[in-house]
Amino acid sequence: MRIARFSIDGNVAFGAVEGDPTGPDSHEGLVLDIIKGIPFADFELSGTKVPLDKVRLLPPVLPNKVVAIGRNYAEHAAELGNEVPDTPWAFFKPSTSVIGPGDPIVYPSFSREVHHEAELAVVIGRLCREVPRERVKDVILGYTCANDVTARDTQRSEKQWARAKGFDSSCPLGPWIETGLDLAAASDLAITATVNGELRQAGRTSQMVNSIEDLIVNITEAMTLLPGDVLLTGTPAGVGPLQPGDEVAVTVEGVGTLTNKVVARA
Amino acid sequence: MRIARFSIDGNVAFGAVEGDPTGPDSHEGLVLDIIKGIPFADFELSGTKVPLDKVRLLPPVLPNKVVAIGRNYAEHAAELGNEVPDTPWAFFKPSTSVIGPGDPIVYPSFSREVHHEAELAVVIGRLCREVPRERVKDVILGYTCANDVTARDTQRSEKQWARAKGFDSSCPLGPWIETGLDLAAASDLAITATVNGELRQAGRTSQMVNSIEDLIVNITEAMTLLPGDVLLTGTPAGVGPLQPGDEVAVTVEGVGTLTNKVVARA
Repeated sequence: MRIARFSIDGNVAFGAVEGDPTGPDSHEGLVLDIIKGIPFADFELSGTKVPLDKVRLLPPVLPNKVVAIGRNYAEHAAELGNEVPDTPWAFFKPSTSVIGPGDPIVYPSFSREVHHEAELAVVIGRLCREVPRERVKDVILGYTCANDVTARDTQRSEKQWARAKGFDSSCPLGPWIETGLDLAAASDLAITATVNGELRQAGRTSQMVNSIEDLIVNITEAMTLLPGDVLLTGTPAGVGPLQPGDEVAVTVEGVGTLTNKVVARA
Repeated sequence: MRIARFSIDGNVAFGAVEGDPTGPDSHEGLVLDIIKGIPFADFELSGTKVPLDKVRLLPPVLPNKVVAIGRNYAEHAAELGNEVPDTPWAFFKPSTSVIGPGDPIVYPSFSREVHHEAELAVVIGRLCREVPRERVKDVILGYTCANDVTARDTQRSEKQWARAKGFDSSCPLGPWIETGLDLAAASDLAITATVNGELRQAGRTSQMVNSIEDLIVNITEAMTLLPGDVLLTGTPAGVGPLQPGDEVAVTVEGVGTLTNKVVARA
């Protein structure tokens, strides 16, 4: 099932996406069956349906925290002249950085070099801590696309990345949560980023240095994850600059396409 | 005014603290006047009073995010063999790391070297972004004590600090929010940490490399701060190890004392 979060007539709701899109970034022919309740517990479909192109899609979750991982694809580490670390390097992106599909990525005042980083995002379904490897599958609600937007110049000058990777609008998520992939399937998906239609990043989740299981075991060894928390699993090679006016699209095979425009500050 | 957050008979409330404590860590003689509403908007005191030693104090806020600053006291940077950075190094501690006064700091499984870091914490009172220096005073609700508990060995091995400084119970806050200090007063307060009654850290907020104004300007240049968000302003020299069984107390002059026991994992 694909679960979207959206606003309609000023109300926020979750809905199950029905139908097949006609193109990677088209919502034509898609319909939302409004969910009664929230997707983090047992829920029912209401049977009330709205065309997806009549609503505004929101980030598919409002995470309490986003935990992200640096240098989790060897080729990407190499392209920035970095080594692959011995253990995952986890950092946070704050809830205030999260935007949805179609929302603008706003260039921050302190950077001249904002980069796209296409990633598979894991949406956590239940409160969990010290998750054993064999239980990882049970704490995952599903998968969405993420863009770990990064002020690369700031990242170089500030050794902790709160500003470089935590500025407002630096965490596009969407377009929806795909709940139908098992861990094996999620661990071998194509990821791409295009800028203005040109291919920039292309990789497969099978290239991760630390697998989804590795990461959830490692993170929950330290901290409790809450329903709706999001894990960004790292970006493959091909990161590069964005400029105001660009349109960046992250596609994860079997999940969907997340498209955002880059704009200058007002 | 000193605003505490507490639970009584299963309910959570804010209250204004009345009376003078008889000692730095004593609640004898203190009374809470229960607040109608929340302290982030206009509120009234109810006149309903409860003795402070009859309630359980909670973290004085439940922050959406905690933004913390590395190496903001030159002597502390030097004691770990580090240089003072050109710009503030901001990092996040997640909401799941926050505990209140008296709550246990639980030693994480992956560390053998957990350190205390006594800090002045700034509690944000209103939603704000790109705050000009002269408006910083308007976005501050008040001040509390913080312990930026750090797995030092993990911090050395993982160059991003999400696990080292973000593990559950690594962010004690409290005992309450002091709203009666202006920026000038807050910028020259004594900070101490004791372990089992022995003085370990002693400094003054006037020793910060980047002032409270500097930090709020710098952070809000990148990201929106929300009511209840917390800024940790860095730790003075004297950080050192904690072991299960230790009692660590952070005192900020004019604010109060935050005491927590360190315990082994169950």
